[in-house]
Amino acid sequence: MSSGFFGDIKPVKYEGPDSTNPLAYRFYNPEELINGKRMEDHLRFAVAYWHSFTWPGGDPFGGQTFERPWFNDTMEGAKLKADVAFEMFSLLGAPYFCFHDADVRPEGETLAESNKRLYEIADYFSGKMEKTGTKLLWGTANLFSNRRYMSGAATNPDPDVFAYAAATVKTCIDVTQKLKGENYVLWGGREGYETLLNTDMKRELDQMGRFLSLVVDYKHKIGFKGAILIEPKPQEPTKHQYDYDAATVYGFLKRFGLENEVKVNLEQGHAILAGHSFEHELATAAALGIFGSIDMNRNDYQSGWDTDQFPNNVPEVALAYYEILKAGGFTTGGTNFDSKLRRQSLDPQDLLIAHIGGMDTCARGLKAAAKMIEDKALTGFVEERYAGWSKSDAQAMLSGKLSLEDIAKHVEDKKIQPQPRSGRQEYLENVVNRYV
Amino acid sequence: MSSGFFGDIKPVKYEGPDSTNPLAYRFYNPEELINGKRMEDHLRFAVAYWHSFTWPGGDPFGGQTFERPWFNDTMEGAKLKADVAFEMFSLLGAPYFCFHDADVRPEGETLAESNKRLYEIADYFSGKMEKTGTKLLWGTANLFSNRRYMSGAATNPDPDVFAYAAATVKTCIDVTQKLKGENYVLWGGREGYETLLNTDMKRELDQMGRFLSLVVDYKHKIGFKGAILIEPKPQEPTKHQYDYDAATVYGFLKRFGLENEVKVNLEQGHAILAGHSFEHELATAAALGIFGSIDMNRNDYQSGWDTDQFPNNVPEVALAYYEILKAGGFTTGGTNFDSKLRRQSLDPQDLLIAHIGGMDTCARGLKAAAKMIEDKALTGFVEERYAGWSKSDAQAMLSGKLSLEDIAKHVEDKKIQPQPRSGRQEYLENVVNRYV
Amino acid sequence: MSSGFFGDIKPVKYEGPDSTNPLAYRFYNPEELINGKRMEDHLRFAVAYWHSFTWPGGDPFGGQTFERPWFNDTMEGAKLKADVAFEMFSLLGAPYFCFHDADVRPEGETLAESNKRLYEIADYFSGKMEKTGTKLLWGTANLFSNRRYMSGAATNPDPDVFAYAAATVKTCIDVTQKLKGENYVLWGGREGYETLLNTDMKRELDQMGRFLSLVVDYKHKIGFKGAILIEPKPQEPTKHQYDYDAATVYGFLKRFGLENEVKVNLEQGHAILAGHSFEHELATAAALGIFGSIDMNRNDYQSGWDTDQFPNNVPEVALAYYEILKAGGFTTGGTNFDSKLRRQSLDPQDLLIAHIGGMDTCARGLKAAAKMIEDKALTGFVEERYAGWSKSDAQAMLSGKLSLEDIAKHVEDKKIQPQPRSGRQEYLENVVNRYV
Amino acid sequence: MSSGFFGDIKPVKYEGPDSTNPLAYRFYNPEELINGKRMEDHLRFAVAYWHSFTWPGGDPFGGQTFERPWFNDTMEGAKLKADVAFEMFSLLGAPYFCFHDADVRPEGETLAESNKRLYEIADYFSGKMEKTGTKLLWGTANLFSNRRYMSGAATNPDPDVFAYAAATVKTCIDVTQKLKGENYVLWGGREGYETLLNTDMKRELDQMGRFLSLVVDYKHKIGFKGAILIEPKPQEPTKHQYDYDAATVYGFLKRFGLENEVKVNLEQGHAILAGHSFEHELATAAALGIFGSIDMNRNDYQSGWDTDQFPNNVPEVALAYYEILKAGGFTTGGTNFDSKLRRQSLDPQDLLIAHIGGMDTCARGLKAAAKMIEDKALTGFVEERYAGWSKSDAQAMLSGKLSLEDIAKHVEDKKIQPQPRSGRQEYLENVVNRYV
Repeated sequence: MSSGFFGDIKPVKYEGPDSTNPLAYRFYNPEELINGKRMEDHLRFAVAYWHSFTWPGGDPFGGQTFERPWFNDTMEGAKLKADVAFEMFSLLGAPYFCFHDADVRPEGETLAESNKRLYEIADYFSGKMEKTGTKLLWGTANLFSNRRYMSGAATNPDPDVFAYAAATVKTCIDVTQKLKGENYVLWGGREGYETLLNTDMKRELDQMGRFLSLVVDYKHKIGFKGAILIEPKPQEPTKHQYDYDAATVYGFLKRFGLENEVKVNLEQGHAILAGHSFEHELATAAALGIFGSIDMNRNDYQSGWDTDQFPNNVPEVALAYYEILKAGGFTTGGTNFDSKLRRQSLDPQDLLIAHIGGMDTCARGLKAAAKMIEDKALTGFVEERYAGWSKSDAQAMLSGKLSLEDIAKHVEDKKIQPQPRSGRQEYLENVVNRYV
Repeated sequence: MSSGFFGDIKPVKYEGPDSTNPLAYRFYNPEELINGKRMEDHLRFAVAYWHSFTWPGGDPFGGQTFERPWFNDTMEGAKLKADVAFEMFSLLGAPYFCFHDADVRPEGETLAESNKRLYEIADYFSGKMEKTGTKLLWGTANLFSNRRYMSGAATNPDPDVFAYAAATVKTCIDVTQKLKGENYVLWGGREGYETLLNTDMKRELDQMGRFLSLVVDYKHKIGFKGAILIEPKPQEPTKHQYDYDAATVYGFLKRFGLENEVKVNLEQGHAILAGHSFEHELATAAALGIFGSIDMNRNDYQSGWDTDQFPNNVPEVALAYYEILKAGGFTTGGTNFDSKLRRQSLDPQDLLIAHIGGMDTCARGLKAAAKMIEDKALTGFVEERYAGWSKSDAQAMLSGKLSLEDIAKHVEDKKIQPQPRSGRQEYLENVVNRYV
Repeated sequence: MSSGFFGDIKPVKYEGPDSTNPLAYRFYNPEELINGKRMEDHLRFAVAYWHSFTWPGGDPFGGQTFERPWFNDTMEGAKLKADVAFEMFSLLGAPYFCFHDADVRPEGETLAESNKRLYEIADYFSGKMEKTGTKLLWGTANLFSNRRYMSGAATNPDPDVFAYAAATVKTCIDVTQKLKGENYVLWGGREGYETLLNTDMKRELDQMGRFLSLVVDYKHKIGFKGAILIEPKPQEPTKHQYDYDAATVYGFLKRFGLENEVKVNLEQGHAILAGHSFEHELATAAALGIFGSIDMNRNDYQSGWDTDQFPNNVPEVALAYYEILKAGGFTTGGTNFDSKLRRQSLDPQDLLIAHIGGMDTCARGLKAAAKMIEDKALTGFVEERYAGWSKSDAQAMLSGKLSLEDIAKHVEDKKIQPQPRSGRQEYLENVVNRYV
Repeated sequence: MSSGFFGDIKPVKYEGPDSTNPLAYRFYNPEELINGKRMEDHLRFAVAYWHSFTWPGGDPFGGQTFERPWFNDTMEGAKLKADVAFEMFSLLGAPYFCFHDADVRPEGETLAESNKRLYEIADYFSGKMEKTGTKLLWGTANLFSNRRYMSGAATNPDPDVFAYAAATVKTCIDVTQKLKGENYVLWGGREGYETLLNTDMKRELDQMGRFLSLVVDYKHKIGFKGAILIEPKPQEPTKHQYDYDAATVYGFLKRFGLENEVKVNLEQGHAILAGHSFEHELATAAALGIFGSIDMNRNDYQSGWDTDQFPNNVPEVALAYYEILKAGGFTTGGTNFDSKLRRQSLDPQDLLIAHIGGMDTCARGLKAAAKMIEDKALTGFVEERYAGWSKSDAQAMLSGKLSLEDIAKHVEDKKIQPQPRSGRQEYLENVVNRYV
């Protein structure tokens, strides 16, 4: 039975590129084979619970704009919210969803009560998941909204907060496992500092390393098969977050010997805030062997904070999926829309339309990327560009057979005078534009 | 005998805070003891050869503004330049200088010729160093200006460029050792990419790792006692540089097992471009055990490129030295002015005045920082803030004795409800303002 | 009778630079004469009601951290808040305060009810102002928090919102006049757009021009003697705000013939977000004849949103007051602290300490600036730099007596070959450092 | 006779979207009618002389990478450069070009000699223009590269520089008129400041106003029919440029009564540096009645300096042309590629390929924009959104018939309670994605 929230809207269908129906897909066609794999299995879309169903539409200068019938702090509200959420997942045909504990149940007076409520909602989800076929891409704990976390969770100066956060994560992993979640995510929005003046960075990094090790150990203990993912973000809410970007997280993982245990969940908006392109973050994570999953939401290039918009620029999205496909595509990961409506988009339909636009944008991007891969549109040039390195002299340098002196002698003996060759960037950009 | 470039200016002396003589120090007093150590030995000032004596005053929209008698591509010019440079070091009483190969000798037709000229200039320097007492803080190779390096040095798609760069570095380390340099620096201004479309990032990172290993091996082979330093910078000239910031370099070093062999030379301007404060980069490097040396030049906060200005904001500089002192102060490192005159500052005196201002700013900052350390002005608060972690329960969590389940049980049993305490940021900022 | 909120704290006194009492002024000495004028009359400090007494400590990723006894939506709460606010004004000896309607009274069901409550609180304020001597620097209307303003106030696509906003401003000006406010401020936080796709910019600018004209006409009609001030901000909450910066506001005022009727209230944080230094905005407004007042709060240079921190960098603040003094100092304007505590600064004392630090920073900056003015430390150089323009040939060019052809002929006849002179930036920066 | 620089390349032809020929147009089809007008007449493409033929490939950390046979400081070199340039214009079928004086002739010892050379080259151009049919979109003077302009041209503290610049502009306008140029552009790259400490901003703004008035007067005197265009840029090379953005230029023009005489030449890269989107600058200029022409080059979003890349993102370019078409399209203006090759793009073909890619990107964008206009894809929604303003009550507010009191009374009498309506941003973004 429908909650009625979305009126009498029918499930969103693929109608092809010429459709002008705002409630149809023009490119997302789950069954379509892309390089031999169903489009749905490539993209693995997930809807994020928080932005779509929990966020009231506030910004730093204004309060609630959305008026949702479930906006109250009761278990009834939580269940009505779940009803509407699963209706939307079904209408969209989105195979996955993601949630924080705080999104789905009202906080209790004690952790025990909060946990009890979370389990109750998990049961409620469980029934809906079975009925609708929607799966859980990942679960996570909200370790940043409550004032107890104002100075960090794992990195808090107060060990009680560390303990409270650890206990919270334990329950969230348990629930994620129970719901057959395919990953568990840690976003350290408060793991950082507002000012170095009151901060012992080394100590906090050690705390964070310990926390992550506890989570990894627990995962193995309970046999959770999903991936543990860290989500890098450079700042906001805090001035500096320790999980700044993919390269920083890699160094952190290496330091604690966790580089084979933990991967990253990358977000375009966070990449932008860190001064990177999204494809940079993806390429970096792939090069370092820690690529896991993505949050596919766009940041406004002129805004210095996280705008979490639905993606709409196909050429950019194509370059992102190009890196993902080069890295072998998703395994446990997927494409989560950690995107929120603009706060002026008040209508229920806006929720659907925003996801449809995002999913179509991703589908177009994926198709372009897959075709570039298939055609070796770029890789041919790249391989040729580095071809000199396959020669034996070059391999000897790279493998460590030659010392700095050997190489210097070689340069002198051979009177080497390197001649630069065109990097052909504009040519390659034009090639990409044949696909997008 | 003087070159006459600076006219009849006398050596710059300390005259105390009330002096209005633009050619005197108001705060830099080399012999003054600061927490038991001579100020000169704390700050270890170095003048950078390139900006002061080689840069013609150009910017992307304009050419040469400085007219120096040594601006020509001859060995005579190079020697006249050296004469003036050492005169300036002496006038300033700067104990150190730094240089690239390309700063001090005209490039030859071949590497062999370039090397020969470098040795000739090194001999010339040697005599001057002995006479004046000026020492070499660090040497480095310019692996970015010549068009052969347009696509990188160690990370070039052409192994000949890798080889040429390696051979160049060998000579530069040799010369640095010969001149008793206390460090050797690698700045990878072209080790990055302009576009991912033509780039194989993983391959390039591996090349860079190999290059660095070659350098470290060679250092040990020849018994060079100085530190090998990487200088992080996020971008400019390239769109992305692999040595993005201190945390990124740490991850890179860890990946290649070099984290105990190589340290970082940090620059305020580069920190800013990477989205960090300078003190953040210093604190990060210290926490990760890779702090080495600094380039003390300021970036304009409103300009998105490297402005390399002389430092002039005492409160900011004080926080930088505060982190340095907390980390134990410099060992082989020092305070290099990688700063250039504004291109409108045409007069010889401007060169002296800029350095005097920078040195005085650093001296004031150091004095404030040292006093804060002495008074435990901040550390007292910080220690108290984390005091809970010294309790046995907390230590058990941190040491790994407790599992996630143990901690969760502990939270439940003890009904832990953490209570936040004020972070007192404004109070601490006011405390700092008592010192600066 | 005290509310007890601040405990038994005594009024904050000037104790001189050597004081280590965190609840004393080290530099702010209201009676001290600076260039012949009392320091209090130079600085004209105001406390902002909203940040200090209304903001709950939330950020985009977390909710309330402050727990204040008046945080409820009743008139009793509003009066308790007023009690504490005026206690703080008195403890600090701050001569002024500023407020929005929404800060001081709970919103009513209708505008009429909201207005009635505002008048009731205004009466309550009136009594307190008389008793304590605290004056109103400016009043303003909050035209951005309520969801009715989500698409703008004056620039809303719905004329009813324009009307509602106009009616609200009328009451707020009336109340400001009643309380003898010295200015009335308009901050157009929602006067802009989220996306051009749904926006008619020309129409919105015309609406905004009309709105401002209505306000100016009304001011004259009721004989309000204060200045009408626009507060520029480039973005946040919206993607783009029409009052981007001082130069943009000037063009807007010119377009509607209001450049002699309206001035600007400039904020350091907003200057930074617009890509300017604070002193740039001050110098621009002064050059264009529209300088009015300031919000003296600092933005974090590494954060891309409005951080509204208390000022603490004396050299920067000194340059701001230097521009203000050059422009003749404040007339109706003053130094408002539109600054908020960090959300981790939970204690009542933090409120006092933050203001004390800010006021001391301003006092130090003012003293340095005034001394530079007195000494003609910079102006002497500047006047000499432009001295050529006082010659008759130059004046003829500038006055329009010569045409382009005349000037071209003059250059040819005189064979003019301009010779650049040093701009001496580093020298001038060192001079400033003698004062700060 | 061909110079041979481009080998035996044939003129670039339109081959349709499916072509994979890197030297063919896939979308730029000059004769194709778009909303009733030839595509060539819509786009009015111009090639910029400087980046393509004069720039040696340097950046702040490296020198020349391009090796062109005309890189020498002789009139022969200048003519060879012209030969190659006009060959390229013809190969591309670009209808227009643009140039600075400094691009086309070596600077003379005196202004008279420089002018003589400019006239000689103008004659040489004239013959080529007649033969090839290439026209001049605009001419301009380089008032920023030579060291005489290091402290500004019109805004220089030295009136001799002002005079020299004025004399230079006179000749450049004369030559532009002689070559039937359709516009004359002023880019004030040095009209700003490096530091306020040595700057008298008000004086400089007055100088700049006078300079512009001289130019406008001269234009009328000689009967030059083209538009005078200012090109806004916020910074780089200087810290701040007075022509910051379109809104700032509008205020400047209004101040000197020139808002009907001068328009703006807008550039995407400059928009980005000023914190705006390109479409924002276009919409602003249109709303203020000063839209003139565009420089269609892209800035890298992650680089804080002017990267001047060829456009390649169709959705963004479509939004730019959408604003241009809404504003009525170009009159005297056009689409100039103020774009440069990446410095690693060494080959002659790269020059052609870069322009082809840029022109195709613009053609695709134009076609999408024109279709959106034709379909009223967005305007229908926008008109409906503001429809309330066409009612008589609303018109009375807007026209000034009602006072603030009248409006307040109206709100109270009618008990107006505005109800927000969805802004539908995501829906509109999806609509745009049907076109791009």
